Amino acid sequence: MSNWYLQNGKESDVVLSSRIRIARNLKKYPFPSVYRKEDAKMISDEIENVTPSLGYGLKFLKLKDIDDVTKMSLVEKHIISPDFALSKNEYAGLLINEEENICFMINEEDHIRMQVFATGLELDNLLKLAIEIDEKLENFVVYAYSEKYGFLTSCPTNVGTGLRASVMVHLPGLSMTGNIQKVLDVVNNFGMNIRGIYGEGSKSQGDIYQISNNQSLGITEEETIQKIKKITEKVIEQERMARKVLGKNTIDLEDMVYRAYGLISNARKISSNECRNLLSQIKLGTDLGIIKELDDSKVNKLNLYTMPANLQKYVGKPLNGYERDIKRAEVIKQIIG
Amino acid sequence: MSNWYLQNGKESDVVLSSRIRIARNLKKYPFPSVYRKEDAKMISDEIENVTPSLGYGLKFLKLKDIDDVTKMSLVEKHIISPDFALSKNEYAGLLINEEENICFMINEEDHIRMQVFATGLELDNLLKLAIEIDEKLENFVVYAYSEKYGFLTSCPTNVGTGLRASVMVHLPGLSMTGNIQKVLDVVNNFGMNIRGIYGEGSKSQGDIYQISNNQSLGITEEETIQKIKKITEKVIEQERMARKVLGKNTIDLEDMVYRAYGLISNARKISSNECRNLLSQIKLGTDLGIIKELDDSKVNKLNLYTMPANLQKYVGKPLNGYERDIKRAEVIKQIIG
Repeated sequence: MSNWYLQNGKESDVVLSSRIRIARNLKKYPFPSVYRKEDAKMISDEIENVTPSLGYGLKFLKLKDIDDVTKMSLVEKHIISPDFALSKNEYAGLLINEEENICFMINEEDHIRMQVFATGLELDNLLKLAIEIDEKLENFVVYAYSEKYGFLTSCPTNVGTGLRASVMVHLPGLSMTGNIQKVLDVVNNFGMNIRGIYGEGSKSQGDIYQISNNQSLGITEEETIQKIKKITEKVIEQERMARKVLGKNTIDLEDMVYRAYGLISNARKISSNECRNLLSQIKLGTDLGIIKELDDSKVNKLNLYTMPANLQKYVGKPLNGYERDIKRAEVIKQIIG
Repeated sequence: MSNWYLQNGKESDVVLSSRIRIARNLKKYPFPSVYRKEDAKMISDEIENVTPSLGYGLKFLKLKDIDDVTKMSLVEKHIISPDFALSKNEYAGLLINEEENICFMINEEDHIRMQVFATGLELDNLLKLAIEIDEKLENFVVYAYSEKYGFLTSCPTNVGTGLRASVMVHLPGLSMTGNIQKVLDVVNNFGMNIRGIYGEGSKSQGDIYQISNNQSLGITEEETIQKIKKITEKVIEQERMARKVLGKNTIDLEDMVYRAYGLISNARKISSNECRNLLSQIKLGTDLGIIKELDDSKVNKLNLYTMPANLQKYVGKPLNGYERDIKRAEVIKQIIG
């Protein structure tokens, strides 16, 4: 079975993936911003000891034992945060399973950030899984918790449920029809965050945006999920309408996506940035059934293995920027087949 | 047997084609700038009557009987001049054979402009053929000739031999290495004309240039040909050196030509201008043995049938600009196969 990020799921034409992250802290230690080295060590040890009892095939890894390319490959998959990958905390750790659909960051901004991932729009099942894991872990540790506020966290924005749910959405249609800013504004006014995952503001490279809640206090986990689902469904609807509009000018749309396909499949060297933009158009082309030469699985592989660190994982050796651009073009041809 | 412009010949990696044009006028009529309608008619009639005796499979056609698309297709092949295609002279005529390697323009700037064409660098044989045809015709008509100046022509620049010899050269290497202007200057200082055949000056679309003599007085036909051959060989040498320089950066060169190939073979609509530029890079790619997917014959076909009028001849019906851009992309795919 391939990893979740290589699969397609519900509403995968627009929703690339769903994630739920729960921030927890252990009652007996200060928050990371103020704790001593020894606290970090004891937290890491506690979690490491509990790992076998949690199940799910989770394994405990010390961050410092993981090589830089592997760390960056996890960042590219959005499995760990960029800040965490660069963490100098010698007791930073990971709990991760083979499928990579569960990943805990230990000694990040909070003591524990447990995350669950799935392809497509899958927030309900993810919430069930996250609660299940959370309850299991609670059998072994005591969380910092206030009757008044809920779960306590390093940063006040996470206090309450400690929950951050998010979906990654691919919005080339809204971008091309010029309606993206309007949709971003609506989502933001709805009490959600939406931002480009590459680059700032409304000009997202690859037309990929992340929608997430910005409220965790005075709201239940279920309410949070329902709210995100509702706004995501609106965004999906808007994106599909935009694609329909583009589809009215069939030849222009076909021309655009096939030129992108022609470039990516024939280039002899290509940057990661150029790939993001071409693959955005190519995914639109396969999702609309225009590009016959590629299926979803190949598009997912192209998206993953053209990123700098995952490319190096794919070829199994470190490469500098120039070598990567050349190897990337070769790997693309291999994947397209 | 396919027409000369679809074949490859000597030095075809740089020299696309050779042409010799001889300007002649009939002694008993005034020059076209001053003659009466009746003169034009009589010239046309005389040549039409002589046509069967000339041989070479030549047929006489009245220009007014030729549809606009066919006329423009001849202009695109450089077989007739753009001015002649637009001529309002109702006695303008063509003598042309099936192979289209011989074409007389009747009642153009001069009474008779006989032209012979060949692919590649073929000036010696063309001169032989041109002289042979000229001598044959002289059996039937009396040319305007002065012992002092030679053949008399409408425009003083053609007086003497009446001969204009030219070669079309493809200079992408010199263009990319930035040495094109230097080479243009040298050729011009050598008493030759060199100019971009599309667009003005040194920025020739498709990197195609025409080298021709600008002297026809006080020089023999053979001397003219030798002079052009000599300068053309220099240009070929320079262009090949430039390609060698480009070839040192193999991956960049491969990337450029394959991106051009990827675009042209995948576009769903494409303008004639974009084709000229992409095909220039693609021809460089096939000439250097980089692009394996195409042979010379396909490149020649692509060059010809992507031009507006020849595209319409290829598909056998008139198309407006928008339709052409779409059909052009289809025809490209058919030719690439």
